Amino acid sequence: MTASYDPVNSAALARVALALLVEPGSRELGGLVRRAGPEAALAQVLAAGVSPALAGAVAARLAAERITTSLRETLLLAERATQHAARIGARIVVPADDEWPLRLEDLTRISRGGGQTIDLNTDPPLCLWVRGPRRLAATLDRSVAVVGARAATAYGTQVAAEIAYELAARDWTVVSGGAFGIDAAAHRGAMAGGGATVVVLASGLDRPYPLANSTLFEQVAEEGLIISEWPPGAAPHRQRFLTRNRVIAAGTLGTVIVEAAARSGARHTLGRARLLGRPAMAVPGPIGSAMSVGCHIEMRGLDTRLVTNAAEIIEEVGRIGDLAPLLRGEARPHDGLDPVAAQVLDAVSVRKISTADEIAAVAGVSGRQARRALPQLVDAGLVQVAGGGYRLAPARRLDGPAGQA
Amino acid sequence: MTASYDPVNSAALARVALALLVEPGSRELGGLVRRAGPEAALAQVLAAGVSPALAGAVAARLAAERITTSLRETLLLAERATQHAARIGARIVVPADDEWPLRLEDLTRISRGGGQTIDLNTDPPLCLWVRGPRRLAATLDRSVAVVGARAATAYGTQVAAEIAYELAARDWTVVSGGAFGIDAAAHRGAMAGGGATVVVLASGLDRPYPLANSTLFEQVAEEGLIISEWPPGAAPHRQRFLTRNRVIAAGTLGTVIVEAAARSGARHTLGRARLLGRPAMAVPGPIGSAMSVGCHIEMRGLDTRLVTNAAEIIEEVGRIGDLAPLLRGEARPHDGLDPVAAQVLDAVSVRKISTADEIAAVAGVSGRQARRALPQLVDAGLVQVAGGGYRLAPARRLDGPAGQA
Repeated sequence: MTASYDPVNSAALARVALALLVEPGSRELGGLVRRAGPEAALAQVLAAGVSPALAGAVAARLAAERITTSLRETLLLAERATQHAARIGARIVVPADDEWPLRLEDLTRISRGGGQTIDLNTDPPLCLWVRGPRRLAATLDRSVAVVGARAATAYGTQVAAEIAYELAARDWTVVSGGAFGIDAAAHRGAMAGGGATVVVLASGLDRPYPLANSTLFEQVAEEGLIISEWPPGAAPHRQRFLTRNRVIAAGTLGTVIVEAAARSGARHTLGRARLLGRPAMAVPGPIGSAMSVGCHIEMRGLDTRLVTNAAEIIEEVGRIGDLAPLLRGEARPHDGLDPVAAQVLDAVSVRKISTADEIAAVAGVSGRQARRALPQLVDAGLVQVAGGGYRLAPARRLDGPAGQA
Repeated sequence: MTASYDPVNSAALARVALALLVEPGSRELGGLVRRAGPEAALAQVLAAGVSPALAGAVAARLAAERITTSLRETLLLAERATQHAARIGARIVVPADDEWPLRLEDLTRISRGGGQTIDLNTDPPLCLWVRGPRRLAATLDRSVAVVGARAATAYGTQVAAEIAYELAARDWTVVSGGAFGIDAAAHRGAMAGGGATVVVLASGLDRPYPLANSTLFEQVAEEGLIISEWPPGAAPHRQRFLTRNRVIAAGTLGTVIVEAAARSGARHTLGRARLLGRPAMAVPGPIGSAMSVGCHIEMRGLDTRLVTNAAEIIEEVGRIGDLAPLLRGEARPHDGLDPVAAQVLDAVSVRKISTADEIAAVAGVSGRQARRALPQLVDAGLVQVAGGGYRLAPARRLDGPAGQA
């Protein structure tokens, strides 16, 4: 980056400066950037030509950084942030870059959208801090969010890991939030399956939360991607997790919750996916488990599909060619039989040798129907001819009398 | 019952005779009985004025009973069956009786219905053999079918028993098929809850299946009802379970499957409920359990509602006044806060004392917004004033830093 004027870099730097001065997702700032471009937006923000709330928030940040409202100083701040990113092995990605995931722009639909009151922090990120060897847009092209409870059960973490493993094995990227429990299991499962995984943090890349997952984060940074819309140094706050969730929902083709309490961030992410028109999915669990309550509540609504494996998830989010085969039960002897033959078969005794007429009377069919069906059943190996009558063939005897289970 | 002509008894006897001669659910016979009445239908059947299949089936039964096609002989047969029912402590109930469940007649809608090909045995029962101290129609008035796998897991039987217990405690009757596993657990749970339960058998009342549940059947016969559309002596055959399932679905206001394999009779019953326009419900379970696969397949369709307890079941089938309260999560400190106050609260440190401006810079809000929000947070007991600044109130410290789970 040079001191001479470079329109691309200049716009990118203005975005970074804005990202340093304003909490992500501001509808007001997002709208201004879209209308005026990032540089004019930055100038207007610094000149306090925006709402008092936005101007005040920027003033508080500038004071904390001990800089003035000078455009030059803020761009220098952004340049230092860019250099700092490089020092911690990260890059800053902006919408003009090839690897910007265009899908994130769908968030403007929510942000602008309709009469529905939804919470703040809905606008797309201004830029993203990215660490890892993959290109972000290509990595998210075929991706699914797998999220859930931190206080997950053994069942939940096993299911999350299995589903992520299967998704990865089918070349789908698994996106999650890097938290304990379901998130971590999903990231690990995806890497075990040899696939890409993306951690979306709610804090600076140098302050990944939770610290105890540091080894996981390092592995993801080597094989997949860790991203954040907060600059290095930003701490994880409650509202930031909620703000972050929209990126998980918007960056992927659909969101699956594996375990979630009745009140949970995972349900929040699922709600964001639904607002965006992306498939919302949930995995069922034992009804006595508090960690499945959130999943069950979601599935009792009409807009969340129950899924039990990667194939079913891909069926929801996938394009043609990715469709999962329908699950079928195993074949059984009765399968090929017409109803009359099935009724006749039921009436043939295991031990006693019966005539066709006796069998007809038990089955409730005519003697003629029984005499027509019995040779077919003999041909099929289901019934034996014995002593002038019929009885069940040996293999059938193992089945037990009834088939109602 | 006397030899003199009694139009009511005569029609009832004709129904019993037809039930002895023809397997239940025949669309042809049902239509004939509705058009011509049971006595004329019996005469026409004996005169072979029906399809060759129906006539042949009747001929096979008559031959097995060693009687002719005489109307008098068949009515005597029916009279003996009525007397035999009394000897085994049962009664025969026909549509003209007060206790006939009119809801069963909804089956004619399926039987007559449309272009869709569905299997045989769809017509309502001609009569029912009933044993137990309750009136059948009143007992089924507020009733739910709870059915499922014979090879149920401990989870499934526990859930079935709990749900049935809760339903019984709310004065709902639990109807099931008396099988091992889910069915038996549902019957037992309902009786433990002090409520009525109805076993619908697929064999004669004197041959209840499975034999190992005999103690259960005796208890139900003392407190609830055991019913069958087959005469005493009829053995349990595979097709009969499928035929029987329509009575479970039609006799109740809705059907719940608790556990079911991919191929199962429980799913068949659920399908019958759906065809009848009754609520179809399923209980989720661990996705690794083969006994929950059938439930999950059903819920992946659009017409089966996920339920986890009796209240949710009653919500589906119940009338006004039976509605279950919505499940909500517990209240939390952030609940009453507007987004700005929540953001400010997040930015207040646990240990460090910070000024309003420092907090504003971290939160990404203006100093003015922070100065307005902080006194509210102090009033709410969430934040403390300390040494010229603010820090979190002690109780908050236990919450941990993040709220994303």
